[in-house]
Amino acid sequence: MRPSLAIIAGGGDFPPHLARIAAGQSGALFVAALEGAADPLAFGQADLKSYRLGQLGRLLEELRRREITDIVMIGALPRPSFGALRPEASTLKYLPHFARAFKGGDDHLLRGVVRFFEEQGFRVLGPADIAPELTAPVGPLGRNSASPAQKELLVRGFSLLAALSPFDVGQAAILADHRVIAIEAAEGTDAMIRRVADLVANGRLKIAKGDGVLVKAPKAGQDLRVDMPAIGPETLRNIADAGLSGIGLKAGQVLVGGGGNLGSQADQRGLFIEGVA
Amino acid sequence: MRPSLAIIAGGGDFPPHLARIAAGQSGALFVAALEGAADPLAFGQADLKSYRLGQLGRLLEELRRREITDIVMIGALPRPSFGALRPEASTLKYLPHFARAFKGGDDHLLRGVVRFFEEQGFRVLGPADIAPELTAPVGPLGRNSASPAQKELLVRGFSLLAALSPFDVGQAAILADHRVIAIEAAEGTDAMIRRVADLVANGRLKIAKGDGVLVKAPKAGQDLRVDMPAIGPETLRNIADAGLSGIGLKAGQVLVGGGGNLGSQADQRGLFIEGVA
Repeated sequence: MRPSLAIIAGGGDFPPHLARIAAGQSGALFVAALEGAADPLAFGQADLKSYRLGQLGRLLEELRRREITDIVMIGALPRPSFGALRPEASTLKYLPHFARAFKGGDDHLLRGVVRFFEEQGFRVLGPADIAPELTAPVGPLGRNSASPAQKELLVRGFSLLAALSPFDVGQAAILADHRVIAIEAAEGTDAMIRRVADLVANGRLKIAKGDGVLVKAPKAGQDLRVDMPAIGPETLRNIADAGLSGIGLKAGQVLVGGGGNLGSQADQRGLFIEGVA
Repeated sequence: MRPSLAIIAGGGDFPPHLARIAAGQSGALFVAALEGAADPLAFGQADLKSYRLGQLGRLLEELRRREITDIVMIGALPRPSFGALRPEASTLKYLPHFARAFKGGDDHLLRGVVRFFEEQGFRVLGPADIAPELTAPVGPLGRNSASPAQKELLVRGFSLLAALSPFDVGQAAILADHRVIAIEAAEGTDAMIRRVADLVANGRLKIAKGDGVLVKAPKAGQDLRVDMPAIGPETLRNIADAGLSGIGLKAGQVLVGGGGNLGSQADQRGLFIEGVA
């Protein structure tokens, strides 16, 4: 029998989707829904309890009572309010563990959270360990696939992201007309795509039909257990608005949202999504 | 005696500044002001004529009549209107030279223009060949210089730009809090700085006082004769708005605007500008 699994669930479609897949596997499943982020109703009949971030102590007690061995964390975290963070008595003793982690950036914090659960005796898995089908496969997701010219842009884009990796930056880039149009840093993928849409709208940039592509991959040091890059229906809408023709994803290393039918959504928009090994 | 020099002048402060410096050197000087870009009144007593882009033939005749040997092109080009481009009879025969150049991006076009003037027998110089004092020196421009922590960010920033160079992108980047915050691609330096200002204004990014820096350098393949990166008073205003602390420039390879007193303008704002070898 598979060890008992707890999904610590944030916001968005990924946590319920992962829960549905995990429920179909052997072994007990428990969902710890983060208040203000996860919608408990989205998880159907799953065995679920909700927790504020300040109720970490209570969550740990529950995980131990249930003899949970494996944990997977997935979904968007809310910008925590002071109310959500307010620690209960059973949480106070863990605070020193996090003081150091809070000093770095988000990456640093996530690594601190992973280390904390490991120190508490749990195994921390990534969504892809439970459900590889949530990530981009090798090849096209829908019926459309990248043309040779588009493939060339994808290859160049992934080389660019690899060159940026030592600088701990560059989860995504946009290429068109044989050149690099935009590189993501602190602004995030959606803001980068909107920037390109604005340049096109203002006439400062022309992107021919079938030309522009988005590439997305994790950075080299990224912990894919807790910080896997993701795309979803919104990404498709945004790249369509910017006049791009498709998306290249590092296969197995980017989460694909849309409840399993993002490929057909891409088809409907005349876009390609392709996983590249 | 120095060979006769023509300045083909676009918009902004750089062309008149270069003309003043060149006028103080030996040799004849002629200014060809591009209509719609250069302001003839800004050039004082210089020997000057104005030309539409479509009057290339007439310009060449004038350069030959004056036995001009050297050309320097400087200043911002207007987005050319059809009116400005409308070729005169004496220009028509040169059009085939430009048909190919117009097909690539801006870089490609500029290289085409350089090649054209060279084919016509002129020597094309860069602004730095005439007036190295227009470019960033090694070391601080004003009284403020980068702190050791800021220097560390500058070094990392220049490494990042060097890593991007093979991809023909990355004239500038912004770093803060030990990481890369923004990378310039098609949007241009000013838009990149405004993006960081917006992230700070929206609370999505915090930049501590004395932390954030802008780095700026040419790309590896850039022809510094016609396409040298530049900063000016507006750059200073923008980085102040974004809460950055200063600017690192590749020494000798970035034009410094502000009529020769950008260092003191930086001092007044508590910013540093530093050339890095």
